[in-house]
Amino acid sequence: MSDKIRIGIVGYGNLGKGVELALGQNPDFSLEAIFTRRDPENFKTTSKAVHISDIANYIGKIDVMILCGGSATDLPQQTPQLAELFNTVDSFDNHGKIPEYFNKLDSVAKNSSKLSLISVGWDPGLFSLNRLLGQAVLPNGKDYTFWGKGVSQGHSDAIRRVEGVKDGVQYTVPIESAIDMVRTGKNVELSPREKHERICYIVPEDGADLDKITNEIVNMPNYFADYDTTVHFITEDEMQKNHKGMPHGGFVIRTGVTGNGTNQRMEFSLSLNSNPEFTSSVLVAYARAVYRLSKEGHTGARSVLDIPFSYLSPKSGEDLRRELL
Amino acid sequence: MSDKIRIGIVGYGNLGKGVELALGQNPDFSLEAIFTRRDPENFKTTSKAVHISDIANYIGKIDVMILCGGSATDLPQQTPQLAELFNTVDSFDNHGKIPEYFNKLDSVAKNSSKLSLISVGWDPGLFSLNRLLGQAVLPNGKDYTFWGKGVSQGHSDAIRRVEGVKDGVQYTVPIESAIDMVRTGKNVELSPREKHERICYIVPEDGADLDKITNEIVNMPNYFADYDTTVHFITEDEMQKNHKGMPHGGFVIRTGVTGNGTNQRMEFSLSLNSNPEFTSSVLVAYARAVYRLSKEGHTGARSVLDIPFSYLSPKSGEDLRRELL
Repeated sequence: MSDKIRIGIVGYGNLGKGVELALGQNPDFSLEAIFTRRDPENFKTTSKAVHISDIANYIGKIDVMILCGGSATDLPQQTPQLAELFNTVDSFDNHGKIPEYFNKLDSVAKNSSKLSLISVGWDPGLFSLNRLLGQAVLPNGKDYTFWGKGVSQGHSDAIRRVEGVKDGVQYTVPIESAIDMVRTGKNVELSPREKHERICYIVPEDGADLDKITNEIVNMPNYFADYDTTVHFITEDEMQKNHKGMPHGGFVIRTGVTGNGTNQRMEFSLSLNSNPEFTSSVLVAYARAVYRLSKEGHTGARSVLDIPFSYLSPKSGEDLRRELL
Repeated sequence: MSDKIRIGIVGYGNLGKGVELALGQNPDFSLEAIFTRRDPENFKTTSKAVHISDIANYIGKIDVMILCGGSATDLPQQTPQLAELFNTVDSFDNHGKIPEYFNKLDSVAKNSSKLSLISVGWDPGLFSLNRLLGQAVLPNGKDYTFWGKGVSQGHSDAIRRVEGVKDGVQYTVPIESAIDMVRTGKNVELSPREKHERICYIVPEDGADLDKITNEIVNMPNYFADYDTTVHFITEDEMQKNHKGMPHGGFVIRTGVTGNGTNQRMEFSLSLNSNPEFTSSVLVAYARAVYRLSKEGHTGARSVLDIPFSYLSPKSGEDLRRELL
């Protein structure tokens, strides 16, 4: 019998595939099965694929389920059901609904004596941790989050719904001069337009009215109207060649004052060539923490804010202190 | 009766003064007393100063002692004694001796049912946390630590011992092109000379042999011989005006590969205008964690790697989830 941490993946989109790859880099895990709503026969993977309707057969055979569904509809429905049967970790990122989601899972997982770790990834996730750290260490200060340069799925979806658009990608780009201004520690107030610009690459339908497309995008309320937006028209070839990656990243900057007016600055940043693969890697590290905390008898819901970093590493406390402190 | 966290400061050098100032920014603390080996009558502070020989009178009146002595001789002797009587937090930074120090305190504090949190600050401390996080999230990668631009006390002490030197300050400066090379993710190997340069500002004694001073400094083994070192001679006025601050900072950069060769990068950096005031601010945030964990019944030694970030903040878990996730 293996003493590896036995993992199930629920959902096999970009995130689920990323988790499968990330587990391959961490020899203390074994991937027991990938659960899917689709027909598992059609899966192009050597991992074991199982229809989600059979998931209850795996009770006691999986230590942690890594939930890779979407936050809009999948997770709010799936996680409470699965937390009755398994320890779970997910990347729920609907910021406004996190408190409600947490409370629901806390009650389910306490009842089932499972542990349910929510909203793992980089924002929410590592960025949240850095915002907390900045506020705790420099209470007299201000924090700023910049996102990008990266692809926003929501904004890309929005431009693809515009009439005459065949394909489209939207990049959120932090404005360099705004980051520099923040770094001076002058506690500047910045509007959305001053912090980020939006750049769209569009493959138009044949004969589409390009001015009309541009106009409709840059004036779209909520998504683009409050930003400086640039629209570029490109060929289908260029789209395939240059814009099918999913880069992202960003900055959390805390500037503050200690003592009698001394400026101090903390900064955390990510530069990611694949947003889903990075999020997956964070999920896997935190699945290790869920396994251990659950073994120690912890139950209920948790967020990354509640997890000591030592639980993320396969190394012993002794090794960590010797190598990292 | 106050329900604030009652703090004692042990030692009133730069760090102790920084803690006193930092407590003033955190209304959930009250500073009960500063303990000193010197004559408390001569202290220029409105806080209560007490001779350290009277510290046992404060048992039960102080929740956490923040130890602000030096790592060379003060802490190895003081902390085990004080951990018999109080919860403690310190900034012990003798990297090689941390495992031994931890084990000693773990045994003392378990016996006395106290909690003793060691090696709090930024390196060891926040930098250690980021090294752990990088390794856990991107196991297939490499991390780099750069220090500076900042004043190194050890190197400044070394140049002040050179014959003909009246006063001197040494800055450790990370080499920008090395940082840029690391950021490309090429897993470069860098020698000490390739990562940092050392810049010295010297006030010479009247009539001193400047070439001899320069020569002795740049060839000093362990301290300077392995680095490119520049020596500038300045006046006493310039020294007072431009070089009496204690700036520091640095970078922890983790580059790694996920999936099938995707480059990813995580970076944490600090830019500090006062090293001791920042370290003090970190100590105060972690004193809050010590207080709470101790209330929950935890005893023994801990390092920052063992402390969830939620314990650093005065806010409730509910508020943190709503505001930061």
